[in-house]
Amino acid sequence: MNKVAIIGVGHTKFGRSTEGLIDLLSNASLEAIQDSNTSDKNFDSVYVGAMSPSAFNNLSGIASALVDKIGLIPAAADHIKNGPASGGSAVKVGFQAIASGMSDLVLVVGGEKMTHLTIPGYVTSNVATLTHPEAERPHGVSLPSFAGLLTRIYLEKYNAKLEWLSEIAIKNHKNGALNPNAHFQRTIEDFMKSAITKGKGNWTNVYEFLKDEKRNPIIADPLRLFHVCPISDGAAALVLCDAEKAREFTDTPVLISGVGQATDTHIIYEREDITTLKALKLASSQAYTMAKKTPENIDVCEAHDAFAILEAIQSEDLGFFKKGEGAKAAHEGLTGIGGKIPINPSGGLKARGHPLGATGVAQVVELVWQIRGEAGKRQVDGAETGITCNFGGFGNNIISIIAERLVQ
Amino acid sequence: MNKVAIIGVGHTKFGRSTEGLIDLLSNASLEAIQDSNTSDKNFDSVYVGAMSPSAFNNLSGIASALVDKIGLIPAAADHIKNGPASGGSAVKVGFQAIASGMSDLVLVVGGEKMTHLTIPGYVTSNVATLTHPEAERPHGVSLPSFAGLLTRIYLEKYNAKLEWLSEIAIKNHKNGALNPNAHFQRTIEDFMKSAITKGKGNWTNVYEFLKDEKRNPIIADPLRLFHVCPISDGAAALVLCDAEKAREFTDTPVLISGVGQATDTHIIYEREDITTLKALKLASSQAYTMAKKTPENIDVCEAHDAFAILEAIQSEDLGFFKKGEGAKAAHEGLTGIGGKIPINPSGGLKARGHPLGATGVAQVVELVWQIRGEAGKRQVDGAETGITCNFGGFGNNIISIIAERLVQ
Repeated sequence: MNKVAIIGVGHTKFGRSTEGLIDLLSNASLEAIQDSNTSDKNFDSVYVGAMSPSAFNNLSGIASALVDKIGLIPAAADHIKNGPASGGSAVKVGFQAIASGMSDLVLVVGGEKMTHLTIPGYVTSNVATLTHPEAERPHGVSLPSFAGLLTRIYLEKYNAKLEWLSEIAIKNHKNGALNPNAHFQRTIEDFMKSAITKGKGNWTNVYEFLKDEKRNPIIADPLRLFHVCPISDGAAALVLCDAEKAREFTDTPVLISGVGQATDTHIIYEREDITTLKALKLASSQAYTMAKKTPENIDVCEAHDAFAILEAIQSEDLGFFKKGEGAKAAHEGLTGIGGKIPINPSGGLKARGHPLGATGVAQVVELVWQIRGEAGKRQVDGAETGITCNFGGFGNNIISIIAERLVQ
Repeated sequence: MNKVAIIGVGHTKFGRSTEGLIDLLSNASLEAIQDSNTSDKNFDSVYVGAMSPSAFNNLSGIASALVDKIGLIPAAADHIKNGPASGGSAVKVGFQAIASGMSDLVLVVGGEKMTHLTIPGYVTSNVATLTHPEAERPHGVSLPSFAGLLTRIYLEKYNAKLEWLSEIAIKNHKNGALNPNAHFQRTIEDFMKSAITKGKGNWTNVYEFLKDEKRNPIIADPLRLFHVCPISDGAAALVLCDAEKAREFTDTPVLISGVGQATDTHIIYEREDITTLKALKLASSQAYTMAKKTPENIDVCEAHDAFAILEAIQSEDLGFFKKGEGAKAAHEGLTGIGGKIPINPSGGLKARGHPLGATGVAQVVELVWQIRGEAGKRQVDGAETGITCNFGGFGNNIISIIAERLVQ
């Protein structure tokens, strides 16, 4: 199997954009191509991750449209879908194109354009099509409602506190404030101060602020607004090539050394223990084995905190903390920048934002910046190896990717 | 690069089905798994090709849903989209999973469920989202209208006759009548006789019948109903493994020896010559080079005759006939079973039917049956090597796959 290196990355600002999906994908792609010092003439394949361009943008054939738009014709072009893990799946498929020797130079790009959808609940309803069409969806469940149920079970089973989950949101907003590409470049304290200035209330600290029914309303009891990721626009891209050739293009290639993906039951009640992500345990174990790494070797992690509870549980099933201790670890500051295992230095889905198909690619882009030492104010000191967790569905299709400094 | 073999195939009947998309995908998959003599425990990845399950079936996460339904958890599962070439792209991506060594046993399945969509024009409108969103779609063009324009240009430029294109439809219906999985298992003569019996008219031969405004109305001038493929439901599946291990499962493995894919301009008027499919010339040349074959080595071809004109042009750009001579070749019987190069012995999109995402996989399934000598009454004598052409968009994203008898 050929080894696969990342030689270029691109990332639009996440948030509310006036550009269309193809434009966002184009911008991230062109930035990655420029960063890679390759010529656009040499690309032989392109993989685009996006969850719902049909429902959100009335577009199909987005991969064909993209290669035309950015001048990569006649490169092969395909669209890869795996719910909110469409980006991670696109990275995997692009990885396989290089690993097999079928491609020499691959562009992987993920993106989504959603903020223009103003019908209340439209996005959440669309994402809810990931639930089981007979056992779950007809009963009105959505992904946030599952996250609320999971939070209740977790807090009771492991004697954890909701405030500990709030600290995950506080940390991720703190990190996002240091990320110029983040949707929210503000700490929760910033939000509080702004609300005080506008005369909307008075609070002495963020914990008090987060208990305010109006400023932080309940989304899916007990989860409140700040426990939940936003709806965002954005795109992120990678250029991949055979690791043997990577230094022809860049002095700072990053190796994709581990790739894992696994599924679990579609129907959540069929799982033995809803607080354990079997698919993540398996996917990350595949990635660790392939990369010859253990959780102790990981310097930085990008997790899928669509809901704060997920980051806590993922930090356990990725092997960083014992089962039931992920939320507590966040409370103890072990997952902050400078902590035992920094999780989501980018701001994560909570603060960087969550343009569905972009997320899995953006996670890898953040690892690349961290490993190259280019993460600016949110740099994790000495980051050499990182891991991601990207969620398609509610724990039933998970991808985990390990990237590390390429030494040769 | 590991060599990749097909060790099992499955194919639902195409046509009007009462089953849902996931059921159709499941049925084809289970048939392929049974045909492969593998255990469902051993699959490590699944790739599902489908064009528009979001618009047609309000489903997302279809790959995750499928692995759950047919008991393949924890296999990795992704959905591959490339318009009506979603099936071909899924085969390519599955091929790369084995070729890279990332997977040992892969299920590739393509399918679509469309016949329940009763709003007039809904399917055609959805497929029209493949056209350029600024230069083409706002002007009301659809894929059939492009095919009509292309037909006019071709007939004039190469002094060809519309009747020659009708003979492609006649041939494909004749072949489809021999295919128990075809949507239409009737010759055009059968249709004519049935109409005579019902007192709807009287014709002395099919050419006269095909000129009847009522029985064969104009769809996109000069193309009539019988020049155009139907809207169908159905699914088809393949099981892939490393060719080195194929004989552990079957005595009749088939090698995927060539895979090519290329794109062309999204906007059709930007092409130098609309009657030449540059993307197909490139994709098939990649496949021929990889397989170390020339058009002379091909015994059987499955083309993408969504419109009769496309089969004629594809037969040229695949290298079987000179430019402008494809329609004439069909008229001369060179593409019938027993002809110089049998094209669409399955009945093609015209008669086997065209459940969008299923087609690219079904084409490869037909090659497997032909190469194994299991094609029954439509068997091409001594078929050892075959090629496909699968269209995503209107000529702007094309996949070509070569399969041959695995000798070792």
